[in-house]
Amino acid sequence: MILTVTLNTALDITYTVDTLAPHTSHRVGEVVERPGGKGLNVARVLAALGHSTVVTGFAGGPVGTVLRGLLASEGPHDALVPTAGNTRRTIAVVDTATGDTTQLNEPGPLISPGEWAALLGRYTALLPEARAVALCGSLPPGVHVGAYADLIRRARAAGVPVLLDTSGEPLRRGIAARPDLVKPNADELARLTGARDPLRATLDARRRGAHSVVASLGADGLIAVTPDGVWRAAPPAPVRGNPTGAGDSVVAALLAGLVDGLPWPERLARAVALSAATVLAPAAGEFDRPAHDELLPLVRVTEHAAAA
Amino acid sequence: MILTVTLNTALDITYTVDTLAPHTSHRVGEVVERPGGKGLNVARVLAALGHSTVVTGFAGGPVGTVLRGLLASEGPHDALVPTAGNTRRTIAVVDTATGDTTQLNEPGPLISPGEWAALLGRYTALLPEARAVALCGSLPPGVHVGAYADLIRRARAAGVPVLLDTSGEPLRRGIAARPDLVKPNADELARLTGARDPLRATLDARRRGAHSVVASLGADGLIAVTPDGVWRAAPPAPVRGNPTGAGDSVVAALLAGLVDGLPWPERLARAVALSAATVLAPAAGEFDRPAHDELLPLVRVTEHAAAA
Repeated sequence: MILTVTLNTALDITYTVDTLAPHTSHRVGEVVERPGGKGLNVARVLAALGHSTVVTGFAGGPVGTVLRGLLASEGPHDALVPTAGNTRRTIAVVDTATGDTTQLNEPGPLISPGEWAALLGRYTALLPEARAVALCGSLPPGVHVGAYADLIRRARAAGVPVLLDTSGEPLRRGIAARPDLVKPNADELARLTGARDPLRATLDARRRGAHSVVASLGADGLIAVTPDGVWRAAPPAPVRGNPTGAGDSVVAALLAGLVDGLPWPERLARAVALSAATVLAPAAGEFDRPAHDELLPLVRVTEHAAAA
Repeated sequence: MILTVTLNTALDITYTVDTLAPHTSHRVGEVVERPGGKGLNVARVLAALGHSTVVTGFAGGPVGTVLRGLLASEGPHDALVPTAGNTRRTIAVVDTATGDTTQLNEPGPLISPGEWAALLGRYTALLPEARAVALCGSLPPGVHVGAYADLIRRARAAGVPVLLDTSGEPLRRGIAARPDLVKPNADELARLTGARDPLRATLDARRRGAHSVVASLGADGLIAVTPDGVWRAAPPAPVRGNPTGAGDSVVAALLAGLVDGLPWPERLARAVALSAATVLAPAAGEFDRPAHDELLPLVRVTEHAAAA
């Protein structure tokens, strides 16, 4: 199975309103709730691709109960660790006319030392069964900033390939613990390295400790700097739609390609096709399977001369 | 006891953000949850004033469970009727710098015919114990627009004084069923009657069927048109603060004055003082008791020459 870790899970709530106008009152049209947090999104896509997946991380309080109830009707197996605090909500307010989205993200519950110890125990117990592990998203209050570095070292000690998808200081600390793969986006990469040029920044990120770095550049596709070479992969043409979850689909495809032992160009082609198929799907975080199958042979993967 | 009915209860959630900027992402600072819906707010104030209060209406789903859990730690007795659907949330997004608030209100659960029948049964069973009843707020989906008129007729048949605090078509239909008292604000009154002048509109509202009408005019206080006379009541000076819940405090004071058999000028003075003390309290919907006691003797109540 593939294990994903979401320390700051969320109940993702989507509201539709005519137009969000600050300091006025709005009647919400539609209310949609979904289990969220990057690792849960990655696991949902992996399950849809037919992979056995297990999710761990934290969930608690009434919101955590709702999240776990919704998760039970999806594919991934629930190995979340209970918390005394209430799982956070994220509210996406979508303007009906334009599709523009305003995001309100609660901070998440304060994790106690006992809860963190329980998570480490659960994680360590799951690792021997895992063919790969993904560590995804932000850290909730109370979890130390080096938490991902700790989880990476444990995965490496267990011989399990580990992917890190986070930002800021947790990314910086995590990379230093030598994960097999990190997947920053262009902004995260620029903040990490100070370099504006994506290739230069990706090379720099790899020098900080990651075995491989796959940077997602939005509509421009991916840059991968790996021990086997450097590649760019891009869709045949830019796709328009809802980019929510596109990055999570890249992570899912990279994990699937890893456990299937695919060569890098094939992994990257699948990641680009799955990401584009996610943008094209009407519902955030879903993917359009026929579009994926149609796009896959059209993705352009080019090897780059730059030495990795 | 005093009975309040809240057909569309809500979990009131308050978020603080730096400044709400549409189409961007926000980290929420503080998250506060409180049982809401006008009738629950009225009951909370009545309980704080020492009155035995019972709340009915609907609550259901995970949000309803949270609401009832929070309500259990407050004064009113919970006689809410369960629903299959999820109780709505209302989100108040407060800008930290200015205190300006943006409101997002979910529509509420669809009430089934069976749930409505259960509410009628519960209400009818509670009426003989009630010294007064207040019908408060909007109607959830599935409840017919004449629902308040039905509840008013049942209260009148049981000989229980009934106050109506709602808006739009439910107010129009409700007034025609001859409630003892309606408490529209200036906007609701103008929409009901088409008249801009508050006194003219209040007189008009009474002619539509209500025995008494108390119109709340914000910082200008109250106008009351009753069988005993016409009065204006106003605070000694405008008060500045958070007006959330001020109207619910007016309703609570009017109910308390009714069951205590106070003359109209005294009821109105208490309603103005309690409303102003609510605006002055830092937390929305609370009231500042020392401010109330200080303001009460200073409220100006003047009888109006106009014939009721």
